[in-house]
Amino acid sequence: MAEIPTLSSDQVAYFMDIALAEAKRAGEIGEVPIGAVIVKDGQVIATGSNRREIDQEASSHAELLAINQANQELGTWRLENTALFVTLEPCLMCAGAIINARIPLVYYGAQDQKAGAVSSLYNVFEDERLNHQVKTYIGVKADQSKALLKDFFQEIRQKQKAKKQAAKELKKLAESE
Amino acid sequence: MAEIPTLSSDQVAYFMDIALAEAKRAGEIGEVPIGAVIVKDGQVIATGSNRREIDQEASSHAELLAINQANQELGTWRLENTALFVTLEPCLMCAGAIINARIPLVYYGAQDQKAGAVSSLYNVFEDERLNHQVKTYIGVKADQSKALLKDFFQEIRQKQKAKKQAAKELKKLAESE
Repeated sequence: MAEIPTLSSDQVAYFMDIALAEAKRAGEIGEVPIGAVIVKDGQVIATGSNRREIDQEASSHAELLAINQANQELGTWRLENTALFVTLEPCLMCAGAIINARIPLVYYGAQDQKAGAVSSLYNVFEDERLNHQVKTYIGVKADQSKALLKDFFQEIRQKQKAKKQAAKELKKLAESE
Repeated sequence: MAEIPTLSSDQVAYFMDIALAEAKRAGEIGEVPIGAVIVKDGQVIATGSNRREIDQEASSHAELLAINQANQELGTWRLENTALFVTLEPCLMCAGAIINARIPLVYYGAQDQKAGAVSSLYNVFEDERLNHQVKTYIGVKADQSKALLKDFFQEIRQKQKAKKQAAKELKKLAESE
C-alpha cells in the first residue's frame, strides 16, 4: 500500500488557496481558470495553471503541467508520498496522469459534470483493476472555484454580446449612409 | 460531426509500420516498446515513442509526446482531421489526451488488459456523455506489437535471472575463501 501523506485542515486550506491563486492567474491571461499544486513533506514542489490556449497544446492542463514540473523537481516519474490539489475535478487525461505518476492523495474543488473522471462521469481513482488507487477529498473550497469559473464565463458572454451589439450598430450606420 | 480522414489499407499498414519502428526504438533504449504516429492529409506530422524512464516523466507516453509534437507542428491544440496510430491500446491518460485534442480517428495494435481505456477496461472513445468521440480500429498489426513487448519483457527477465545467478556465485565464492 502506498504511503498517504497526512495534512492538517489548515494545510489543506492553505494549499487549496495556492491552487485558487494559480486558477486566477490562468483567468487573467484569458484561460479557463483552473489551478493545481503538488505538495511533498508539507512543501509546494510544483504548481500549474491551465495554459491550453496560450500554449496551443491539448495537454496543457493545470494538473499535467504540475505533474511534469514535480517529476523534474524530484528527478523521478514516481510522485510517491505527494498530494495534488486542483480547483476542478480532473478530466480523463489528468486523472490518468495522476494514476500514472502514482500520486496517492488528491484534493479537488468543484465537480465537472461534463468531463470529470473522478466522481462525475467516472470514478477511476477507486478502480481496483488498475495498479494504483488514489485517496480523494471532494469539494475543498468548491464555492471559490465555481465563482472563478462563473465570473470567467460571464465575462466572455458579456464580451460576445457587446461585440454583437457593436456589429449591429455598425451595420445600421452603414445602411443609413 | 467531426471530419474523419479516409485512409487506404496500404496507408494504414504503412503508418502502423512507422509506429512499430518507433516502438522498436523505445525498446532499444530500455523503454517498454510502444510507438505512435499522427497523420494528416496522408503525411506523418508527428511521432512519439515511450520515454518514461529516460525522461523520468509520468506523462512521457508515446501518444502524449506525439500529440504535443503535432500541436506544435500545426500551431493549434485542435488536431482535427488527423489520425493517430499507436502500437498498444491507450491508457486513461492518453485516451483522455486524444479526446482533448479532438483526434477523430485512432488505429491501435495490441490490447492492454491491465490499463487499456479504449476496449479492455473502459470504452471512453464511444462515451456519448463526452464532447468528442473517436472512431477506432483495433488489432492493426497486433502480433508484431505483442512480439516486441514479449521479447522486451523476456530479455528483462533473463537479465534479472543472470544477475541473481551471479550474486549467488559471488556469495558462494566469498563463503569458500
